[in-house]
Amino acid sequence: MIVQKYGGSSVATPEKIRGVAERIKQRVDRGEKLVVVVSAMGKTTNSLIALAEQVSPEPSPRELDMLLSTGEQVTSALLAMALCDMGIQALSYNAFQLGMTTTGGFTNARIMDLNLNKLKTQLNRRNVLVVTGFQGITQEGDVTTLGRGGSDTSAVAIAAKCGCRCEIYSDVAGVYTCDPNRCSGARKLEYITYDEMLELSSLGAKVLHSRAVEIAKKYSVDLYCASTFSDERGTHVVNSLPEWLEQPVVSGVTTDSNQTRVNISRLPRSASVMSTLFSGLAGKGVNVDMISTVNENGHSYLTFTVVDATEKTVLETVRESLAPWEGWSVSADRNVAKVSAVGVGMKSAPGVAARFFSALDRKGINMLGTTTSEIKISALVSRDDGEEALRALVEEFGLVE
Amino acid sequence: MIVQKYGGSSVATPEKIRGVAERIKQRVDRGEKLVVVVSAMGKTTNSLIALAEQVSPEPSPRELDMLLSTGEQVTSALLAMALCDMGIQALSYNAFQLGMTTTGGFTNARIMDLNLNKLKTQLNRRNVLVVTGFQGITQEGDVTTLGRGGSDTSAVAIAAKCGCRCEIYSDVAGVYTCDPNRCSGARKLEYITYDEMLELSSLGAKVLHSRAVEIAKKYSVDLYCASTFSDERGTHVVNSLPEWLEQPVVSGVTTDSNQTRVNISRLPRSASVMSTLFSGLAGKGVNVDMISTVNENGHSYLTFTVVDATEKTVLETVRESLAPWEGWSVSADRNVAKVSAVGVGMKSAPGVAARFFSALDRKGINMLGTTTSEIKISALVSRDDGEEALRALVEEFGLVE
Repeated sequence: MIVQKYGGSSVATPEKIRGVAERIKQRVDRGEKLVVVVSAMGKTTNSLIALAEQVSPEPSPRELDMLLSTGEQVTSALLAMALCDMGIQALSYNAFQLGMTTTGGFTNARIMDLNLNKLKTQLNRRNVLVVTGFQGITQEGDVTTLGRGGSDTSAVAIAAKCGCRCEIYSDVAGVYTCDPNRCSGARKLEYITYDEMLELSSLGAKVLHSRAVEIAKKYSVDLYCASTFSDERGTHVVNSLPEWLEQPVVSGVTTDSNQTRVNISRLPRSASVMSTLFSGLAGKGVNVDMISTVNENGHSYLTFTVVDATEKTVLETVRESLAPWEGWSVSADRNVAKVSAVGVGMKSAPGVAARFFSALDRKGINMLGTTTSEIKISALVSRDDGEEALRALVEEFGLVE
Repeated sequence: MIVQKYGGSSVATPEKIRGVAERIKQRVDRGEKLVVVVSAMGKTTNSLIALAEQVSPEPSPRELDMLLSTGEQVTSALLAMALCDMGIQALSYNAFQLGMTTTGGFTNARIMDLNLNKLKTQLNRRNVLVVTGFQGITQEGDVTTLGRGGSDTSAVAIAAKCGCRCEIYSDVAGVYTCDPNRCSGARKLEYITYDEMLELSSLGAKVLHSRAVEIAKKYSVDLYCASTFSDERGTHVVNSLPEWLEQPVVSGVTTDSNQTRVNISRLPRSASVMSTLFSGLAGKGVNVDMISTVNENGHSYLTFTVVDATEKTVLETVRESLAPWEGWSVSADRNVAKVSAVGVGMKSAPGVAARFFSALDRKGINMLGTTTSEIKISALVSRDDGEEALRALVEEFGLVE
């Protein structure tokens, strides 16, 4: 038994759906049993959101999930039809039918459980179950969705529960040392660790949803990413690289231009200021990154980054949280990009940070901030410098052919 | 508490959905609690069927229902959003959430039950529940649909279960003495009986789905049909006409051009031939109408009508069923139309059939067959004569102003 997931661009048209059905048929003909998780066709989710906004400028999150979940149901029914048409015993399943329960956080719910018995019983009688990705239900029976890219999470969660392998198919043939659309000569990685993949997927690489990688890591799911449209070999996401493989210091580099830098000047130096502020932001569900503070003349100067889309919420929350204090000011700057290098090899190779900083420095790129983890170094640069910074790192760490 | 139903043309665009929400708001402001049943937006169901046919020439019925049910879910979510946006406590509900169980006959299921407790509990806490029409689930949890026009049935079934009034809104302002698009001066009826409405809706008048009228009659549901787009008074469908109302002999006339006449010649005269044939057709779910037989020279000549769409199935079934016998031949003719006059007053007014036949005769219209019931007279005529036959009847029974 294997779980496969096909992304939106893989099922964008009836012809592509039949193409996916052909691929599945080849596997069934080899005697495999498949659970196939599907996304909504092409840009369907965006169209549905646009429809919702024509009806209500701020749609009810519960109703938005009810609306968006139809996209995956359409694909699952069509793919099951295409399979039946090829003589394969296939059945579509939605979140209700599979008991895919989640927390109640509409538009960004987290999977809690699924009805494994039902899934196994049905799969015993058939060759293929086609399951709606992205959606779940609460214990009260409300429809939820798992947030953008959530179909990856659905697939990995099912694979984790079933203790089987998970294959993620999309229009990208695997994980590369850097985005092949931006770096010519980018190399495809045969293996990458969960930890590296987690840093890469949360850093803006779009191959895999980071929640999916978290779950894969937690349950040691054998994860494989490859192209829907070719048979070339993809990338295995694993716990640790095979020993025979040469361990690179840096496995990949990535940029994220979807960042806003928030600057707060002349904060009073008090622990309660900071805790009030960050509790306020956490309360609104805002992820804060690259926090740095400087103290001068009895004041604090605070900088952090958030994703672009949350800017309005962040500024409002900052103003509310800091209302009891006076004299401070806040500003936001979208003209930034985050460049990062990731590699498990960093742990055992000293001097990687020095090489990283020198590479940017040689190109005259000014760093607005940095953060590091055991396997990652990130720098914030001006958005205009993002591409050049990426090229500098690619050259420095020998990531292109 | 009141059940309302809005048809596809009433919710065809985001603007129209907001318009429906405004109408609902007026009722809520008067303190009413509403269960609102919705159809898919405009031509959505047709588009989904076209999509299915691109994937599979004969889509699996189970998967087709899974696909089509998304149309109503989209509308219910959008209408609930629009209501929430106007400050009304509204919640969308699909067949799963409402426990709307049906028989397992995909694409043409029949409602068996719904979770009344859940509906009442939710409605106690809120003003409006927006429920997906047309869809149900089997006891095993598969998605079913109720056949074309099934949202009327959903609405009436909920009203029957709740013991409340049911209002059906569409782009037609009520039930007329004949189709206002074909007879200028057609009068809107203030009242019509269930029995008359049943004859009219199964005879091709498109105001109400006949299953819905059957259920309304069985449970004496107070049924009201009116326009979504105006406030003019609609039509009440009732058990018997109010006594103060002048009882018309004929309440309405209708034509149905969606009929095929099947002729079978030189059948052996044997009861087992007929029972084999009609059991075969019943086994395929074909509704047969206007059956007539003539015996001549030791053979039977049989004629009956079926709806156009079943022609292929019917001819195949006839050939299979009659295979044990020889010498007969079968042909099908689509060039027919059925014209009918309906009225409870017929029961007590002799000579209505004579007036009906004379009216057609005076226009030189040849009748290919006739059937009558206590409250209905139908004649089969050439399709070209359909319109003129309708006008003859309208004049004869004084149905226009």
